[in-house]
Amino acid sequence: MSLAALRQRIATVSDLLCTLNLIVWDSRTMMPSGGAAARGHQIATLTRMARDTLAADATMDLLARAEDEAAGLPADDLAHEELRQIRRAAELHRRVPAELIERRAAVRAAANAAWIEARARSDFSLFAPLLEETVANTRAYADAIGWEAHPYDAMIGLYEPGETLASLQRLFGALRDGIRPILDAALARPQAQAAFVPGAFPADRQWEAAKAFSARFGFDFGRGRLDTTVHPFEISFTRDDVRITTRYNPADLRPALFGAFHETGHGLYEQNVDPAFTRTVFASDLVGLYAVGGTSFGAHESQSRLWENHVGRSRRFWELNFAELQGFFPDALANVTPEAFYDAVTGVRKSLIRVEADELTYDLHIMLRVEIEAALMDGSLKVADVPGAWADAMQRHLGLTPPGDREGVLQDIHWSSGMIGSFCTYTVGNVMAAQLYAAAKADPGVAAGVAAGDYAPLAGWLRRCCWTHGRSKTRDAILQDACGRGLDAGAYLAHLRERYAG
Amino acid sequence: MSLAALRQRIATVSDLLCTLNLIVWDSRTMMPSGGAAARGHQIATLTRMARDTLAADATMDLLARAEDEAAGLPADDLAHEELRQIRRAAELHRRVPAELIERRAAVRAAANAAWIEARARSDFSLFAPLLEETVANTRAYADAIGWEAHPYDAMIGLYEPGETLASLQRLFGALRDGIRPILDAALARPQAQAAFVPGAFPADRQWEAAKAFSARFGFDFGRGRLDTTVHPFEISFTRDDVRITTRYNPADLRPALFGAFHETGHGLYEQNVDPAFTRTVFASDLVGLYAVGGTSFGAHESQSRLWENHVGRSRRFWELNFAELQGFFPDALANVTPEAFYDAVTGVRKSLIRVEADELTYDLHIMLRVEIEAALMDGSLKVADVPGAWADAMQRHLGLTPPGDREGVLQDIHWSSGMIGSFCTYTVGNVMAAQLYAAAKADPGVAAGVAAGDYAPLAGWLRRCCWTHGRSKTRDAILQDACGRGLDAGAYLAHLRERYAG
Repeated sequence: MSLAALRQRIATVSDLLCTLNLIVWDSRTMMPSGGAAARGHQIATLTRMARDTLAADATMDLLARAEDEAAGLPADDLAHEELRQIRRAAELHRRVPAELIERRAAVRAAANAAWIEARARSDFSLFAPLLEETVANTRAYADAIGWEAHPYDAMIGLYEPGETLASLQRLFGALRDGIRPILDAALARPQAQAAFVPGAFPADRQWEAAKAFSARFGFDFGRGRLDTTVHPFEISFTRDDVRITTRYNPADLRPALFGAFHETGHGLYEQNVDPAFTRTVFASDLVGLYAVGGTSFGAHESQSRLWENHVGRSRRFWELNFAELQGFFPDALANVTPEAFYDAVTGVRKSLIRVEADELTYDLHIMLRVEIEAALMDGSLKVADVPGAWADAMQRHLGLTPPGDREGVLQDIHWSSGMIGSFCTYTVGNVMAAQLYAAAKADPGVAAGVAAGDYAPLAGWLRRCCWTHGRSKTRDAILQDACGRGLDAGAYLAHLRERYAG
Repeated sequence: MSLAALRQRIATVSDLLCTLNLIVWDSRTMMPSGGAAARGHQIATLTRMARDTLAADATMDLLARAEDEAAGLPADDLAHEELRQIRRAAELHRRVPAELIERRAAVRAAANAAWIEARARSDFSLFAPLLEETVANTRAYADAIGWEAHPYDAMIGLYEPGETLASLQRLFGALRDGIRPILDAALARPQAQAAFVPGAFPADRQWEAAKAFSARFGFDFGRGRLDTTVHPFEISFTRDDVRITTRYNPADLRPALFGAFHETGHGLYEQNVDPAFTRTVFASDLVGLYAVGGTSFGAHESQSRLWENHVGRSRRFWELNFAELQGFFPDALANVTPEAFYDAVTGVRKSLIRVEADELTYDLHIMLRVEIEAALMDGSLKVADVPGAWADAMQRHLGLTPPGDREGVLQDIHWSSGMIGSFCTYTVGNVMAAQLYAAAKADPGVAAGVAAGDYAPLAGWLRRCCWTHGRSKTRDAILQDACGRGLDAGAYLAHLRERYAG
C-alpha cells in the first residue's frame, strides 16, 4: 500500500519533470522572444513543486512505511534500489535551505545576462562578480549536501555519481600521457582537411539526410522529432517522446550531420529505457530534478559519442554510406570521394574552442576546465585570476594562447547557468563509449552488422547491456557486466591510437 | 501581506495553467504520436495540482484574511473583484467531490476513443453508452456547483457567465426570426461561388500570406507564432507568448486565410490584455482551470468573428487587399477579380456540417445543439433518441436530413470531451462582434482607417474598449460601456441583412 502510494507520488514528480523538459525544449526551438520572462516563472514554479512534493514530510512518512513494506521482498528486488534512490534524493533536497535555492536561481538569471554581455564585449570583468557569487553559492550548496575529501566532489557526484576529483585526476593523468604521443603523430601526418571543399548544402536537404541516418541508427520518429537549434541537444518527456535537434550551416554539412549522429545516440538511450520504468525513479534524476532515463551524464554522453565517433567517424561507415549522402547532395559532393570525406571528418588540429575541437584534442579542453573548477571550489584560485589560469592551462595542454576572453574563459555557457562539476562527464562519456564499443564489436553479430552497414545488431547489444536498464543500474555496473571492468582509459586510447596514429 | 501572499499563490496556479496550455499546444502541433499516453498523465497531474492549490484550506485562510485586508480599500479598487473571482472559483472547486472529478476524467478519455471509433463507422450506438455517462456526470457536476432554474444553466455559466437557457432562448428566438427572411433572400440571389476557380496554392505561400495579413491586423510575431494543425485554434502562455494555427488546403486558400483571420482575432485579444494582469486571476479562468485573458468564451469569439467576418469578409477589404493576395499567388489568382473573390468568400448555402457553415446559417447549427443539450440535461431527451432529435431539428432549422450519424450527431468533438454548454458561445460571439464593430465604426478614426486599409485605429479601439480589461470586466460591462447596451441581436441582424439581403 505505502509502496504503491509512494510510487504514485514519484509518478507525479516525474510528470512535472517531463513537463519541465517540454518547457525547456519549447524555449529553445519554438518560443517567440517575448515569451522568455513568463517562461522563467513557469520553470521556477514547476521546479519548486517537484522539489516540494519529493521533500515533503508526507513523502518521508510514506517512504519509511514503504521501506518497512519492502523489507520482506527478496534481496534482488529492484524495489530496494528504487527506495534507496528516492531516500537519497529526498534527503539531499531536505538538506538544502530554501533560501539557498532561491539565491542560486536569482544569481543564475543575473549571471546568464552578464555572461552574454561580457562575451559580446570579450570582457571577463563584467562577468567576474556574478561568477564570484556563483562559486560562493555552489560552495554553500556543496556544504549543504555534504562532501568528504574535496568540496568539488559534491558537485561532481550530482552529474557523475561515483567519481571524485581524485578519481578524475587519475583518469586524466592516464589520458594526458596517452594522448600526447598520438597527437604528435597525428599532427605530423599530412592534413587532408583541405581536400574537402565545402559546397552548397540546402538546410532542408541536410534535415532529410540527418533524419535518414538517424532512422538508420534506430531512432523511432513515431516517438521523437528532429528540430533546429543553434546548440544541438536531446531531451525527453518519457521514452515515447524524445526530441533531438541539430543545426545547419549551408556551406558545410558536417555540423548538421555529426550533431544529429551525436543527439541520436542520446535519443536512442532514452527511447529504449524499459517501458516499465516510465514515471518511476529509474527514468528520473530526482537529485538534479531532471527527467532522464540515462544513468549518469557520462553514460549518456557515451551513447552520443559512440554513434558520433565510433560509428559515424569510422572509415568503414563512409565506405558504406557515402553514396547515400551523395544522393542528398549530388552537386556539392559530386567530386568528393569517400576517402576524402573520411579525412575531412577526422582532421586534427589544436584549437581554442571546446565545441569545435576534434575527437583527439577534446579531452584536453575538459582537463583545463576541471582544474579550474576544482581550484575555485577549494578557494586556491580566485575568480579574478581565472583568465590567467585559463591562459596558463591552455598553453600547457594545447600550446595556444586565447586572443581574448571571448575565445577563452567566456566561451562556455555552463558557469553562467550555475553548472559547476559537469564538464568531466564529457570525458567520462568518451572513455565509456570506447569500452562499450570494443565490447560490442567482440560480439560476432555486432561486428558483422557494422561491417555490412546494418546497425540493428549494435543497437540491440546496447539496448540489452545499457539502455534498457535506465537508472536502475549504475554506470560502473553496466561497464562491469558488459566489459568486465569499470571505467578505464585503455580502450579509448587504443581507439585513438588506431584512428589517429595508426 | 495576506493579499500579496494570496496573489503569489494565484500566480503559481497561473504558471501551471499556462504550462498546461503549452502541453496542449505541443500535443496538437508537434508531438509525435507515441507521446500521447504520457501526455495524458502530465495533463492530469498539472490540472490536479492547479485545482488543489486553488482549493486548499490554506488558500481559503489566506483569502479570508486578504478580504479583511481589502475591506479598507476604496470601493472601486480592482482588488474587490479579484477576491470575488478567486472566492467564487475556489468555492466552486471545493463543492465538487474528488471522486466526480476522477470519474469525469476517466469517462472523457474513454468517450473520446469511442467517439473516434463511432465516427469512423458512422454508428452512434457505439458512442451512446459513453454519452449516457457523460450526461449523467455532467448533471452531477451541475448539481454540485449549483443551479436555479435549469441544470443546464450551471454548465452555460462555466463558459458564458450571465447567460442561462432562458436568456439564450430569447436571443435565439430573435435571431431565428431575423435570419429566416435574410436567408430566403440570399438563396434567391444568383450564387457567385462558382466564379472562383480553385487553383494551386502551395502551403508555404499560404503560410506567408496568412502571416502577412495577421501582422497587418496587429498580431505581434515577437510574442506569438503561426503553426499548422488540422483544426485551427489559438492558445496562450501569457500575453507575451500567443500561438495561433491554421490549416492548408493546396487547392483552396480560403480555409487557411479565414482560419488565420479568425485565430488572429483571438490572438489579438490575448496579446493586448493589460500586462499588469499577467499571472493574476484577470488572465486566468480559475473556474475552468484555463489560462485565458478573454472575459468569456463568447467575448473571445466576438474578436475572432469580428476580424474574420466583419473585416475579412467585407467587400471593401478585398477591394483594398486583393492585389496583395494576388502577389502571393500570381498564377492561381491571375484571372480572379476582387469582386469574384468577395463573392466566393460570402457564398450562402444550407449545409449539414457546422464547421463548414457560412456566416448566415452558422447560428442555426448552434440552436440545434443547444436545444439537444438542454433536453439531455433536464432528462426530457434520452441519449438513445438523440439522432432522431438531431434529424428533426436539422429539418426544422435547415430543411436538411443527414445521410448518417457521421454527418449528423457525431460531427462535433465537444460532447466526447465532456463539454456540454459551450456551443452557445459561438452565437454569443457573433452577436457581440456585430455590436462592437458597429460601435467602433461610429468612431470617425476607425471608420476612416478601415475604409483606407489601415486597421490600427480599429485595433486601438478594441484594445481600449475590450482587450486591455482581460477578465477584470464582464462581457456585459464591456458591451454597456462600448455600445450603450448589453447583448442584443439588432446589430448582428442589421449586418447580415446588409451583406446578404442588401
